[in-house]
Amino acid sequence: MALEPSELIQQQIYVRSRKFAFETSRLRLPNGAVGDWSCIRHPGGALAVPVTAEGKFVLVKQYRFAVQGRLLEFPAGTIESQDDPFQTIQREIEEETGYRAHRWTHLGQFPLAPGYSDEFIYAYLAQDLELLDNPPAQDEDEDIELVLMSAQDFEAAVHRGDPIDAKTIASYFLARPYLSF
Amino acid sequence: MALEPSELIQQQIYVRSRKFAFETSRLRLPNGAVGDWSCIRHPGGALAVPVTAEGKFVLVKQYRFAVQGRLLEFPAGTIESQDDPFQTIQREIEEETGYRAHRWTHLGQFPLAPGYSDEFIYAYLAQDLELLDNPPAQDEDEDIELVLMSAQDFEAAVHRGDPIDAKTIASYFLARPYLSF
Repeated sequence: MALEPSELIQQQIYVRSRKFAFETSRLRLPNGAVGDWSCIRHPGGALAVPVTAEGKFVLVKQYRFAVQGRLLEFPAGTIESQDDPFQTIQREIEEETGYRAHRWTHLGQFPLAPGYSDEFIYAYLAQDLELLDNPPAQDEDEDIELVLMSAQDFEAAVHRGDPIDAKTIASYFLARPYLSF
Repeated sequence: MALEPSELIQQQIYVRSRKFAFETSRLRLPNGAVGDWSCIRHPGGALAVPVTAEGKFVLVKQYRFAVQGRLLEFPAGTIESQDDPFQTIQREIEEETGYRAHRWTHLGQFPLAPGYSDEFIYAYLAQDLELLDNPPAQDEDEDIELVLMSAQDFEAAVHRGDPIDAKTIASYFLARPYLSF
């Protein structure tokens, strides 16, 4: 993407959270409009579309405080400062699913919520999965259950409106051409 | 989705922006974990997948200050307090594209960025399009160009990594079964 920064006139508010910051800035946009806009500054997220040898997708059913409920998602995590996206997802898939992947394919990246966040999701296809005897511990605040689904079952769940988030649906679409079933 | 609220212990910070608020709360999650979490409280967004009689998808190339560049997106807008999602998207499609749609199909809804936002996107298929002679004015800060693409061109753009956001890819996937081409 060709970068086309806005002119920063004033930075008004800056809140730092665990994994991201929130700021309000007075900007002059490339079209000349001046105003105050707020957004989350995020280091990015890495996501895996894990597929077993039997053609099942490995998802997690995960509690999300923001929406007060449990969503079906592909395993993913925030990129930490010492890591790149690929290191992040190699760790996260083990922590969240107990699987290690031995074959990885980069599927691409996309902006998650560009109206108020600079986060990009870096998506990978994860294959040749090995179920670990002693998987690493999950983060303390994570509340996760493993769900294995066929492509048919996953697509049916999306189309009947099961709670599945945008990055999961988008990453499935990115992965589809790489899968022969 | 079955609602499963966390217990609110303390609300620490509250920033109100134009279209949403940002808050940090001390919560006790359903699994007992206690901590401070931040998120955007958003009224929701409504999105159209507009398709012309010739089978072209109507997209907008739009400047997004958060990612400092232009993204290809389906037309969408924030739900305003006096509106519901369907009223919102009927207005937004005209403002952003100059088209009025005479046939609407509700495609479903999905959480956009549940790690830090409660926003749901309400997606609609918009057909029987009429190009308006005098479309309503765009919002002053919007910087938008119309792009019409075939299904094949859109899918190629997604898979080669053109900057296209998560809600646009996910909504395309939701719309696909409703289209015969």
